[in-house]
Amino acid sequence: MTDILIIGGGGMVGQKFAHSLASAPLSEDDRVTLFDRSFPDAAPLPGERVLGDITDRTAVSALLARRFDIIYLLASVVSGEAERDFRKGYEINLGGFWHIMSRLEAEHEDSGNTYRPRLVFTSSIAVFGPPYPERIDDDFPPAPATSYGTQKAVSELLIADLSRRGIIDGLSLRLPTICVRPGAANLAASSFFSGIIREPLNGQEAPLPVPEDIRHWHASPRSAAGFLRHAAGIDFERAGHRRALNLPGVSCTVGEQIAALRDIAGNEIAALIRPAPDQTIYRIVTGWPRDFDPQLARSLGFRAEATFHDIIRVYLEDDFAAPV
Amino acid sequence: MTDILIIGGGGMVGQKFAHSLASAPLSEDDRVTLFDRSFPDAAPLPGERVLGDITDRTAVSALLARRFDIIYLLASVVSGEAERDFRKGYEINLGGFWHIMSRLEAEHEDSGNTYRPRLVFTSSIAVFGPPYPERIDDDFPPAPATSYGTQKAVSELLIADLSRRGIIDGLSLRLPTICVRPGAANLAASSFFSGIIREPLNGQEAPLPVPEDIRHWHASPRSAAGFLRHAAGIDFERAGHRRALNLPGVSCTVGEQIAALRDIAGNEIAALIRPAPDQTIYRIVTGWPRDFDPQLARSLGFRAEATFHDIIRVYLEDDFAAPV
Repeated sequence: MTDILIIGGGGMVGQKFAHSLASAPLSEDDRVTLFDRSFPDAAPLPGERVLGDITDRTAVSALLARRFDIIYLLASVVSGEAERDFRKGYEINLGGFWHIMSRLEAEHEDSGNTYRPRLVFTSSIAVFGPPYPERIDDDFPPAPATSYGTQKAVSELLIADLSRRGIIDGLSLRLPTICVRPGAANLAASSFFSGIIREPLNGQEAPLPVPEDIRHWHASPRSAAGFLRHAAGIDFERAGHRRALNLPGVSCTVGEQIAALRDIAGNEIAALIRPAPDQTIYRIVTGWPRDFDPQLARSLGFRAEATFHDIIRVYLEDDFAAPV
Repeated sequence: MTDILIIGGGGMVGQKFAHSLASAPLSEDDRVTLFDRSFPDAAPLPGERVLGDITDRTAVSALLARRFDIIYLLASVVSGEAERDFRKGYEINLGGFWHIMSRLEAEHEDSGNTYRPRLVFTSSIAVFGPPYPERIDDDFPPAPATSYGTQKAVSELLIADLSRRGIIDGLSLRLPTICVRPGAANLAASSFFSGIIREPLNGQEAPLPVPEDIRHWHASPRSAAGFLRHAAGIDFERAGHRRALNLPGVSCTVGEQIAALRDIAGNEIAALIRPAPDQTIYRIVTGWPRDFDPQLARSLGFRAEATFHDIIRVYLEDDFAAPV
């Protein structure tokens, strides 16, 4: 049996991943536990739901006393919110993160140093900061330019140290910006990348806060779930002593995104995108990476879409419900 | 008036720095406050002593409510102890550190975003990990190989983020291994670098836990105090967006250290060094940097000794009391 915990299992990627585990389990007898502050009412999720908050040390201790085999740590305040609300971002992304790490250390010690769970952490390309090379290779060093990126970079360092000490066997996956996210816009500064595809396809106008020449790095929610599923099968030592991987994705400009939408859905749909410049979002997004050469992750078998057209098609297949 | 706080003011470098401020003040009317868990009985220290612990959030809040102009953050669990005692290292070097940062954020907000102290943090070359180039330049990325180095690298990231947000104006100084430390050996894995000079000069045998071909990077306690004093006069923005500087020092092997001792004090003294291999220390020390090319710090006017002979002479001038 494989005892799997998804912290942040109520979030969009957590749900996708829980569903993907149902169709491609890790073992013959998976047991899946989802931990989050809330769960969507709608779709029934595979797995046991546990309500709780990673900032609540008691809840974290009770949860981790169950000594899961593999822990997926997805819970996080998103980039825009971590930048706007200093205390909330640090309390959850660093304080909550540390509750988990220190509890795992205590379980390790209490077990006579035998308990050593695998841990997969969703880091972000926001660990990087300008100036960038044309394409970022696997050796390019983290130098975050936002509080969110700082919190992710700090988490990576701590995961590497706890792994080195044998307390956990950890891996940080630096996700591309996930797009097209279903549902409502969120507080991530990257939210519009999904909005300009999702809203028009649903017959609604979508504000575009940045110029069309902004280039960025994307993968679909299906790929995100796939990354997490694929990670379970690899040797984390192969990610090197930093225990962090840049993942595959699609590099394209906003203009290319819009052109792909026009190709797939037509002029009328694409015309629903309306320029609505936002200096705050622009400033954050211009500090983000534009393109990667993720050789190590590719050699380890991680796969994403090849084109932004594919990313839109995944949205249509997995999440689009045509307006009635 | 300049209101100066030295956190860790009871430690060796803190004391040296307090004395150097007495002879080279920052302003016509310095006020110096020293915060530490204990203070040496011996020498009278310039400045007001405040007893307290950075892991005590209440004590930290009371202290920082005084809104110092410049804060020197020197308090730390040393490398060997942080490696041996996971919880103590993280509790002090990360938990205590964060009490200080979050209190400074609260003071910033309470002041209507006007209070923004300068903060100088003693980081360490232990933020780096192998493999190394022959000489480490200013762009070489941190990749710590110990818990101590991880805690310092994390602190640097947090100082950079709080500086970017305008909460503090921070600078991390990556000190070389400070040598020759006066007084007793401590729990730093680097303690023997001082011991093999100090003990023989005081007529005592000194164990040498590593082979003589180990090369490392050193500066004297006088230089350490000088770095801190010099930092007060520079524009921290010049350290770049990482807000961290590699400092000047002397690169030499243990064999060259011993030869310098022989040159200065004679064969009989140098013969008091006895090989006493220690695999734990050896493993830690072989993961440490050997040489640097600290161009940025040099261009900003930071200075250290030119040779290890100079480092021994500084010990004899500043700290050596000939055995009666």
